[in-house]
Formats: sequence, C-alpha cells, structure tokens
Amino acid sequence: MSKINIYEQLAIKTDSKIIMLVMDGLGGIPLQPDGKTELETAKTPNINKIAPHSTMGLLEPVAPGVTPGSGPGHLGLFGYDPIEANIGRGVLSALGINFPLRHGDLCARVNFCTVDSTGKVTDRRAGRIPTDENKRIRDKILASIKPPAGVELFFETEKDHRAGLILRGKKFYENIADTDPQRTGFEPLEPVADDPQKGAQTVEILKDIISQIKKILADEQKANMVLLRGFAEYKAFPSIEEKYKLKSLALATYPMYRGLASLIGMDVDWKISSQEEQIEQLHKNYDKYDFFFIHIKYTDSSGEDGDFQRKVQVIEQTDAMIPHILNLKPDAFVIACDHSTPAKMKAHSWHRIPALLHSPLCRPDKLERFDETHCLRGGLNGYESKYLLPIAMAHAMKLNKFGA
Amino acid sequence: MSKINIYEQLAIKTDSKIIMLVMDGLGGIPLQPDGKTELETAKTPNINKIAPHSTMGLLEPVAPGVTPGSGPGHLGLFGYDPIEANIGRGVLSALGINFPLRHGDLCARVNFCTVDSTGKVTDRRAGRIPTDENKRIRDKILASIKPPAGVELFFETEKDHRAGLILRGKKFYENIADTDPQRTGFEPLEPVADDPQKGAQTVEILKDIISQIKKILADEQKANMVLLRGFAEYKAFPSIEEKYKLKSLALATYPMYRGLASLIGMDVDWKISSQEEQIEQLHKNYDKYDFFFIHIKYTDSSGEDGDFQRKVQVIEQTDAMIPHILNLKPDAFVIACDHSTPAKMKAHSWHRIPALLHSPLCRPDKLERFDETHCLRGGLNGYESKYLLPIAMAHAMKLNKFGA
Repeated sequence: MSKINIYEQLAIKTDSKIIMLVMDGLGGIPLQPDGKTELETAKTPNINKIAPHSTMGLLEPVAPGVTPGSGPGHLGLFGYDPIEANIGRGVLSALGINFPLRHGDLCARVNFCTVDSTGKVTDRRAGRIPTDENKRIRDKILASIKPPAGVELFFETEKDHRAGLILRGKKFYENIADTDPQRTGFEPLEPVADDPQKGAQTVEILKDIISQIKKILADEQKANMVLLRGFAEYKAFPSIEEKYKLKSLALATYPMYRGLASLIGMDVDWKISSQEEQIEQLHKNYDKYDFFFIHIKYTDSSGEDGDFQRKVQVIEQTDAMIPHILNLKPDAFVIACDHSTPAKMKAHSWHRIPALLHSPLCRPDKLERFDETHCLRGGLNGYESKYLLPIAMAHAMKLNKFGA
Repeated sequence: MSKINIYEQLAIKTDSKIIMLVMDGLGGIPLQPDGKTELETAKTPNINKIAPHSTMGLLEPVAPGVTPGSGPGHLGLFGYDPIEANIGRGVLSALGINFPLRHGDLCARVNFCTVDSTGKVTDRRAGRIPTDENKRIRDKILASIKPPAGVELFFETEKDHRAGLILRGKKFYENIADTDPQRTGFEPLEPVADDPQKGAQTVEILKDIISQIKKILADEQKANMVLLRGFAEYKAFPSIEEKYKLKSLALATYPMYRGLASLIGMDVDWKISSQEEQIEQLHKNYDKYDFFFIHIKYTDSSGEDGDFQRKVQVIEQTDAMIPHILNLKPDAFVIACDHSTPAKMKAHSWHRIPALLHSPLCRPDKLERFDETHCLRGGLNGYESKYLLPIAMAHAMKLNKFGA
C-alpha cells in the first residue's frame, strides 16, 4: 500500500471543520536577485498574527523541478497523487460548465475560429464572438449534425468563442493532437493519434464531425470553423468523500476550479462571483460540510500578467478575508496554493509552494511571518502537496491511529 | 509512472546551457567536534559572491545512511536512479579505458599479482609493474590463450598492475565473488557464484581462463598470476540525450569519470589533464552542447589521504575557476559532489552532499556562504541527488508544464 492510500483506512467522519484557502499561483521569486517575492512584499497583518502559532513550509506540488498545470496542482492539494490522477484539459473544461460527464466520455475544448475561402485560419478566436452568438451557433450545429453511428454527441457553449465537445458511446482513444495550428495563415490541422492503429476509429469519428461542422457553419461571417484542443477521456475518480470521508464545498468563482472540485465529488456553489460572497456562503453552509475549499484566482492571473504590484495587492486583499474565516474557529485552517506563478516569469513555475496550517493542535514554528523564506524554516517544509490535506485532517482529529 | 521517469515526457530541447561542476568527495565533517569542515574552512570568495542569490542544500546521494561508490554517486547527479542504475566496477573500469562495450559483456578488473611456488599470493600488485611491462604480459597472454568455445575474450592493459578482462558471446552470470584473497599468504580464491546453478557455466569459463593464464605466466618473475574483481555485466542505459534531451560533454581528467560519462552517452574529452584545459574546452565547445560536466578529482583523493589541509587548498583552487565558468552566463550553474569524503574518515561517507544551484530564476536562499551548515537552511535541502539535474533543467526552461 502506498503512503497516500493509507488514509482511506484511517479517515473517520467527525464534526470538526477544515477550511482551505487557495491563493492560486501565490508562490513567487524576486524581480531582482536581492529583492523580495510578492508574498514577502505584501502587508499581511492578519496572516502575520497567526503565523507564529502555525506550522508552515514550502511544499512540492508534483515532483522536483516540475511545473504543474492547475489540474495536478489542485488535485495534490485535495490529497490525490497528482501524477496518478492527471487529467486532460478537455475534461476540466466540460466539468467547468457543469456537464454531467460519465466514465469513458471523450472531451475536447472547442474554439470557434474564422477561416478564409482557402481554408486558412485568419482569426483563432472568431473575433471573440459574444456568448449569445456562441449559443446561436451551437443550436445551429446541433440542429443539423448527424453523429457517427453509435456515438452520442454533446456540444456545449462555454463563454465567448469557447465551447465543449463531448462524445459518448464508444471506447475512444484520447491521445489525439490538437487541431489548432497555433497561428493564423495555416489551415486547421487534421486530428492525429500518437498511435495510428489504436486511434484509427476515434480519428475517423472526429474527422466526420469536424467536416460536418465546417459545412454547417460555411455561411457564417466570423465563427465558420472550429479548432479542437485538449482531447481527454473522463475517468471517474474516487470522490473526496469516499477517500477521506469529507463532505466538501467548493467556493470558487472560476469555472475550471469548480470543475476540478466537482471532478472529485465536492458540492459546488455555481453562483458566487466575489470574495464577499465566498465568505457569506462559507458562513451559511458551515454546519453542512466538513471541508471548505475557497479559491482566489487573481494571485495567479496578476502573476501571469507579470504585474508584481497587482499580485501584492491581491495578497493584501485576501489577507483581509482571514478574520472573517477565523471567526468560525475552524479546527484546521490552511493557506496554500496549487503552484507558484512568479510575476517575473509571467507563467506557472516549478518553485515549491508556500503553505501554512493553523490549528490549536499544531506544533508552532514560532516564525514571525508567512512567506517563502520563513516557510523554509517551518515544520511543513519539504512535504509533498498531496499530504497537506491528510495533515490538516490529523489536526482536525479526522484520522485514526495506525496499528496497535 | 515513477517521479524520476516523468521528466522523459517533459524534457525539451532548447538553446539554454547547464554547467555542473562536481568537486568529488567535497562534503566533509570537522576533525574536532567544535571545528569546521573542509568546505567551511576554505576561503571561497567567488562562490560566496553568488551564494546569496543561489539555492543550496544538502542532498541525499542514494539513501539515508548509505555511502555511495563513485558510480552511484555520479549517476544520481546525472539524473539516474542510483539504485536501479547500479553498475559494477568491472564495467566502469572497461569504460574508463574507452573499451567499446556491448550489451551483455561480462567485465572484470584484473590485478596482476605474484604467487610463490606453493601458489600463495606474496604480492597482490606484482610489485606495481610499470605499464609497459603490463602491455608485454598482455600480448603474451593474448598470443597463447584459447578462449572457451563460443566466447570472445578481450584483455586490456589499464595502468601499472591493473588490466581489464571482457568476455562476450554467452549469457553470462555476473554475481561472481572476487578471486582476490585481500591479503598475502593465501591462494587466489576460486571464482564462485552466489547461485551455483545459475552461475555454473560462467564459473566454468572463468576457471578455464584463469588456469590458462596461470600456465602462460608461470615463467614470469613478478606478474605470474591474476586476481579478478568487480565482475559485472554491461547493460546499456538510456542515454542522457534520450532521457533528458541533453547533448552533453564530459570534462574529466580521470578514466573512471570519463567511463561513467560515456556509459550514459556523453561525449568525452579524452585528452585534457588540468583545470586550465577543462576551462579552455568548456569555452571552445560551449555552443555545441546543452550540458557540461566538469569533474575535479583532488577533493576526493586528498580526503581519502586524510589530508584536511590539502582538501581545503583544492577547494580554494577550484573556487578560482568559478569566474571563468560564470563569464559564459550559463542558464543554470550547479556545484555538487557525488558523495562526501571527510578527511577525518579517509574514505567515502554517507553524509549528505552540499549542492548549490545558481540561476536568474532561482528563489534565492539569502544565505551568506556555501558550506554544509548553510546548506541545511537552503531551498534544495533534503532533495535526492537524482533530482538535481531535473531541477537545473527547470531553471534552464528545459521542462514543459505537467498537466492542464
């Protein structure tokens, strides 16, 4: 039995509560070698107040030197092995629009695009058509398309020029390359499998569907073609409740993170759109759940934009939420992130992630601040992300003793 | 998929450069409990200049408490699992003299020795005969020996009283004990397999060869017998280029380290013999390779000699190389060692190894010096050696993101 599976035997249902606040992409590096990171720069009086009585550390999200996508980054935080549980973008996308996936469904992300009379892509986003226009085109496709024999086809509007394609009913092959040529002036690529023999049937089905859609959209001005990306088969995971006996609520404002939460069977609030509403729903639902996942997106997006100062501000705004969380007196309160997104790099990175665990039962680090440099000296330093939730469960008395 | 194999999926070919400076046996311990280690004692102004902007740590070369040989120590630094990829001394020896080994070859190290008229060893090194004498005897053996049926036999002079025996053409069994009795006054041991049944054929072949050599050398004054050690079958590894997409150059002055580098498909400079030539060839070849391995032997040999002060001097001399490396502005520069060789112990040891990574993208430790005590507080502390190269690759942007 691997270490991460031992918890399925030890987990017990209790009344205690765990709250995990994920500041997406929180970890950073200094802009200059002798400078400070975003988190070191931010004024975080509320976190600083609990830091000395907490345990903290830099955690390894996937493996040394490996930069995680949002999927593996979050699955680690939810106590899943991020390599075993890796999932494709198409599945995340479908889950993000709350599509009721079934085991074996093949998912792809769709971009509507514009092609010229020779078939070459002139706009990879079809002029970013509005969502209503997207819905009209979706209906037009669904009204005329004839799914290949034995295949059930779903086509769902996501937002702007983005949609989701889901196929059901066959044993599909998922290792299919994107059809997006990644630049204008080129035709969309044919769907190609990495193993032509194993992928033959799936490729035939996709070619048929793409060619039908092309004909159906031929008279459109902007969205007259589709590009398919992130092919992935949906494999149902054991839910977080089966695995850890945690009835869980996700309070995230962005589709993908809702999708990730629903992938592991969390209940998802599909309506909230602000930090105030996250706090409000946390309080309203506090008696109904064991585990709460609160997701803050803008630490990551400001990092991706290379906006160091904006990222500092988002950290400071999030710090202001802390008293409204701690007044619930959770048995374990966790601050973490799925991966680092240094503003200097304008991208996700491999740098270990800062995490803090606050609980009446933690062995305090007695460190004055929560940031990367202090984390290095903390009691959680060097753990893999996937152990963070089990450790929080221990502090909330949700794990039985192992062995006699 | 194990963590160390994930990199084969993620590695990409880029123009960025990684330089790894290996000070063999660098790690040490103080001579007196309140003293300093060799590295703590050395004056290293050039390393100290980059230390605050670097990430450092004590790494685990093989497993806690395990003292590595040079083979496992280096294979770890090259990103191979040192337990899975363990290889015998006989193979290293053959590779060190640039013998073109093939998969399945059985290798052994040979010591010429002197036996008396009763067959007992009187000198385990045959009076350290000169290399020319060694070559004469080799030719004499090859002129008369009749290889057992179906076996191709190679006998190669190494240096002084040392040679290499390589057998090809059968499915050999490698777990054969050394025939060296390890002291004088005893006869050479018979070759014995740990599994008599599986090893039967190989043992027969070896007995035949040894008895022929004994007869051929009967009239020699000094080198009138051979002792065989380090039996090992050569198993071809995936090369460092297949595994990590790194076209690599080894700049080592000693045969064994050249052998180790060639084992994993690095190009090897077989001519250089000084630190000056190492720097010269690094600069000359800088455009042609992705990864450079520079090996410094004398930190280890001074440690093995128990010469603390000499080891300090070698560290200081190596520090003087640093500006001539950094003026190339590598994307990642690594200082590491394969194992510790504390002068106090006059031997390799299990102590974790000091390592430093310098890159514009590292999260700086803000520590003032590079030595064992400071490493304990650094961001690389506690990693296994085998992750050091992948981490350096991340900093040189040679790894794709994992997952969506």
